[in-house]
Formats: sequence, structure tokens, C-alpha cells
Amino acid sequence: MSKKPLILVTNDDGITAPGIRTLIEVMLTIGDVVVVAPNSPQSGKGHAITLDATLYVEQIEVPHKTHLEYTCSGTPADCVKLAVREILDRRPDICVSGINHGSNASINVIYSGTMSAAIEAGIEGIPAIGFSLLNYNWDANFEACKTFVKTITKNVLQNGLQEGIVLNVNIPDIAKTAIKGIKICRQARANWVEAFDKRKTPSGKDYYWLTGEFVNLDGGEDTDEWALEHNYVSVVPVKFDLTAHHAIQHLNTWNFNNTEHT
Amino acid sequence: MSKKPLILVTNDDGITAPGIRTLIEVMLTIGDVVVVAPNSPQSGKGHAITLDATLYVEQIEVPHKTHLEYTCSGTPADCVKLAVREILDRRPDICVSGINHGSNASINVIYSGTMSAAIEAGIEGIPAIGFSLLNYNWDANFEACKTFVKTITKNVLQNGLQEGIVLNVNIPDIAKTAIKGIKICRQARANWVEAFDKRKTPSGKDYYWLTGEFVNLDGGEDTDEWALEHNYVSVVPVKFDLTAHHAIQHLNTWNFNNTEHT
Repeated sequence: MSKKPLILVTNDDGITAPGIRTLIEVMLTIGDVVVVAPNSPQSGKGHAITLDATLYVEQIEVPHKTHLEYTCSGTPADCVKLAVREILDRRPDICVSGINHGSNASINVIYSGTMSAAIEAGIEGIPAIGFSLLNYNWDANFEACKTFVKTITKNVLQNGLQEGIVLNVNIPDIAKTAIKGIKICRQARANWVEAFDKRKTPSGKDYYWLTGEFVNLDGGEDTDEWALEHNYVSVVPVKFDLTAHHAIQHLNTWNFNNTEHT
Repeated sequence: MSKKPLILVTNDDGITAPGIRTLIEVMLTIGDVVVVAPNSPQSGKGHAITLDATLYVEQIEVPHKTHLEYTCSGTPADCVKLAVREILDRRPDICVSGINHGSNASINVIYSGTMSAAIEAGIEGIPAIGFSLLNYNWDANFEACKTFVKTITKNVLQNGLQEGIVLNVNIPDIAKTAIKGIKICRQARANWVEAFDKRKTPSGKDYYWLTGEFVNLDGGEDTDEWALEHNYVSVVPVKFDLTAHHAIQHLNTWNFNNTEHT
């Protein structure tokens, strides 16, 4: 039996995306690779799971049989669930998701299919990392990502991650030599200011396209947005205990149970 | 102009669900109500947004014109974005989502469309609450919810919420007289242990249904699961800064930037 780590690879742009092909290439230098990824793009799907539809899984022929690949008709979170419960014959040592075509820094983590896969693995107790490159294009150049993806993955394999934490890694879209290093950050307070593009169908019915402008509201120098703007790779430890623990004390000063229930 | 608060109502079970009808009924006793809700069930959609498809909005005729109702072809998060940017002529004073048919306590918050709507409003800086009843059935009895929904909503309108926080409220499915009160809680550490139901299509192709068993891994008596089991309404303050701040210090001890980048 192989002593190499078992690496589960997934993404949200779909199994044919250049980003996941780069991720697979790097992971093959580290361990045994099994890919379970959506058969079509799932961007913006958040932490969706498929409750009301059937899921199909198909094994893909891999040249030279260097690793195993499966596509799934579901979401990134579905892929992780299916991999862990049905496809893999042992628990993966790590789950890596991406490399996403486009930023998942700051508030984007909330909408991110890439990160939902990593979070799903984290919920399962598997160390997990989501990787994203700050370039939305299909033909983005992932060359500079490789070294950082490898370094961070090897660090996680070596050190493990604290329970309840996964990593959100974003990489600036610049030459490798221009990247200053890796910075541990917090999620910037940011927002999308939506501007809906309102149009009419040929038959005269109104419809909308969602568009918007990204606004960083956070002047801090310890944020992922700051790091990326200053040519660092950002690493944010992300948790799925969403409790705002600091707010509990304050809410307990409210008179919920003295209020008349009318 | 009305001095009453403007209340945006949405959900993820769709605009015809009994849960949202109860929520509208309660909100009409508190303020001016505008409903913008999905035209079909969106359960398990997590924090999905519609990036790759057109969105339709349709105004619904409301008997006696007590309030305004719109349906949207998108997700709960889309509904909030559309309401704030396109439909409402002023910012709502509060956004309430639900009442969901089924629990959104503990880890379910991650997968919840109900909570994604509340979180989307929170990102917009609007005080927001997601309400859920622990009964998945369409014909669940929401009678006991009313008093608690009203009390909590009025408290939030009166006190406001700290920035970056929304409330996740779950209500046990028992008689009102059996409910002991409202408890501020943290999110329980829990998990779904998936068991995929593997079947074959008539033509012999494998497919899966996602099923699973909920497992509470958390023995604490300050969790939402504990409160619900002990006949309390649980209120968890939820945040959308997912940073695991306590992990940053630890990650900074790693040798990311001394590792040879190969």
C-alpha cells in the first residue's frame, strides 16, 4: 500500500477547467490523487447540496492512469460527500479545491463553490484548502500558482489544521517573481454593490442580469484584500462555526423572556 | 409617510409555503410589509446567487392590498439583492426570512437558503433574522411560532443588531404552552452522516439520492441543539466574517516563506 498521502481534488468551475488541471498536476508531485469534480461550472452556488434531484457519477479515462477521475452531476459540496462516502476506499489525508478562476477573498467566501467544497471536507474532519487565482478568465495563467499551492499543501499535510478550520488561499494574478510571499490574513469587510441590468424579453417581459461592483470597506492592513493588493498570497483560516460568540453576552441583556408574548 | 417600520419578508421554501404566510401574518401586526420570495422551493441552496441566468420578478395581487408581494425566479440571496436594489424605494428596517419548514440549527446553517437570505441582508447592513420550525412537513403547524417570532422581531427593531451579525432562530415543534422560553445559544458541533441511496436507472446507469442521519457531536448545554431538545426557542447570533481569528497566531508559526518554493 502506498505511503503517499491520499489527496482528494475538486473545484467549482468543472472538471475540464484549466485551474483544476493545474491543481491536479501539482498534487501528483505530492501524493496519490483522486479527482471528484462537477461536470459543469458551479460558480456562485454557495454551499448548495442536491436534495431534490438524482446525482450521477461517471469515471473518466485518465491517460497513463496516473490517478483517478470522476465527474459528478452535483455541486462541489455533493462531490465531497460522494467522494468520502461512496468513491474513496479510505479517508483522504487532505482535500484541495480549485484553483478557482477568480477571487474568493473577503466576502466572496460566502458565495464560493470552491470554498464550500473545502468547508464540506472540513466538516468531515478532513484538512482542506481552497485555492483561487485573481483572474476570472478561462485562459488565465496558473503557472505562478504552482509553487505556492505546493508549499501550502505540504505545510498542511505536515502540520495538520486545528479542528473546525479550513484555509482560503487567494493568489494575485502577477508573475511569480513579483509575488512577495504568503501572508496569514483575516477576511476583509467588503461588499458587492449590485447593479441589476434590467432588460426586456422580445415579448416585453422585464428581466434582470445580476452585475455589481466590489467595494472593500476595510482599511486594515491585516486583511486578505490588503495582502493581495500588495502582491502577497493571502491565507485566511475559515471556520464553519458561524456563531458570533462575542454577541452572546450582549444578547443575554435583552428582555426576551420578560416581554409579554402577544 | 408611514412611521411604521418597513419589513422585507423572504424565505427559501417559496412564496406559497405556509411558513412564509405565517411570517407575513405576524409582520403585518408590526409594520409595513413587502414580500420578495422565490417562486419555487430553494431548500439546500446554501448561499447561492444567480450569475449565469436571467432573473424574473413578478408582482402578485394581494387581497385587500394589505402589503406588497413579488416572486423572483432566483435564490433567496437573489431575492434580497433584488429587493434592496430594484424593488424597495427605501431601505428596509429589518429583513425576516422563513419560517422555514425544518431545522436550521447547528451545521444546517451552512446549507440553509433561509439563513442565506438573512446573511445577505446582514451584509447589506440591514438587521436580519432567519426563523425555522423543527418540522419539515408542508402542513406543519406554525401557530406556536407566532408569539416568539413577534417578540424577537420587536426586540431587534428596538435594540438593533451589532454590525456583522444576524440571528438564526429555531423553534421546537411543540405546543406553545410547552415552550419554556427563548435561549441565546452557540451553534452546536454537528454533522450529517450521509448515506447515499444508490439505484439504477431503467437503462442500467447508477445514480444516487442524498440521504443522511444527523449526528450531534456536541455535549455542551449552551448549544442550539441542547436548547431545542429541552423545549427552548434557540437564538444563535451568526456572523459572515468566517475568519477563525484564533488560528491566525498559530498559522504564523508555520514556515511558509522559508520553505523552498519548488
